[in-house]
Amino acid sequence: MKRLVTPALAILCAAFFSMSSHAQFAKTEDAIKYRQSAMFTQSQHVARLGAMASGRVPYDAAAAVANAEVVTQISRLPWAGFAAGTEGGKAKPEIWKEQAKFKELSERLMADTDKLLVAAKAGNLDALKAAMGPLGETCKACHDSFRNR
Amino acid sequence: MKRLVTPALAILCAAFFSMSSHAQFAKTEDAIKYRQSAMFTQSQHVARLGAMASGRVPYDAAAAVANAEVVTQISRLPWAGFAAGTEGGKAKPEIWKEQAKFKELSERLMADTDKLLVAAKAGNLDALKAAMGPLGETCKACHDSFRNR
Repeated sequence: MKRLVTPALAILCAAFFSMSSHAQFAKTEDAIKYRQSAMFTQSQHVARLGAMASGRVPYDAAAAVANAEVVTQISRLPWAGFAAGTEGGKAKPEIWKEQAKFKELSERLMADTDKLLVAAKAGNLDALKAAMGPLGETCKACHDSFRNR
Repeated sequence: MKRLVTPALAILCAAFFSMSSHAQFAKTEDAIKYRQSAMFTQSQHVARLGAMASGRVPYDAAAAVANAEVVTQISRLPWAGFAAGTEGGKAKPEIWKEQAKFKELSERLMADTDKLLVAAKAGNLDALKAAMGPLGETCKACHDSFRNR
């Protein structure tokens, strides 16, 4: 039991410290604008990878890596913008009521983007396609639960 | 002469390919929102470093590195959002009329953020302060010339 609990606690602590070091917004509007800005920036790079994965644009290995690097980096950012007391924007109140679920999905996204970068570096379209599927499912799962349309 | 020209050309080519691999927005509004999102995200992390450098918040070496890493990464992004035909938002038309000057300032910013990250990793407040000065001047120089208030 101890073996199962310790890594989970370590992840929670890491997430907490990571958030607290960034969660310093002058006002709620800044936190909302910050998380929306990070999400939008990320979405543009995900869209480019999606276009390659679906064949709408030709596969370009170097561009895939460049975009995946940005997605991996930016996937770390939005969470600090959901600090306590920053309800609003497109965020559903459930985010602050179901913190464990929200955190789990945020960690799933970061794990997915890590795998995406590995897949992009593999340098073939099939690897990219295989990594984009789970990433898309994670985006959808979190947006369905926690984002107003 | 050749020695002077070649590195300059190499930088221009690198900037061109870097931009072309990213400059794929569905519509002009996306490009405008993308560059504004990247700039705003960056500004929030610069503000945290500014608060430390000015003494408004206590110096925290680890947070300084974390914020400087984000600034360095995001400083690469906005430029793709200023592609030809994407005039609008807060961007002055001069951006598209004075491309050489705009590119020079964008490259100066990226060089400044590289130095900022080195300074943050040095782990002392004086190094951070010394790197924030030139970065702030570059932000101002570019905004004065190319951003509407």
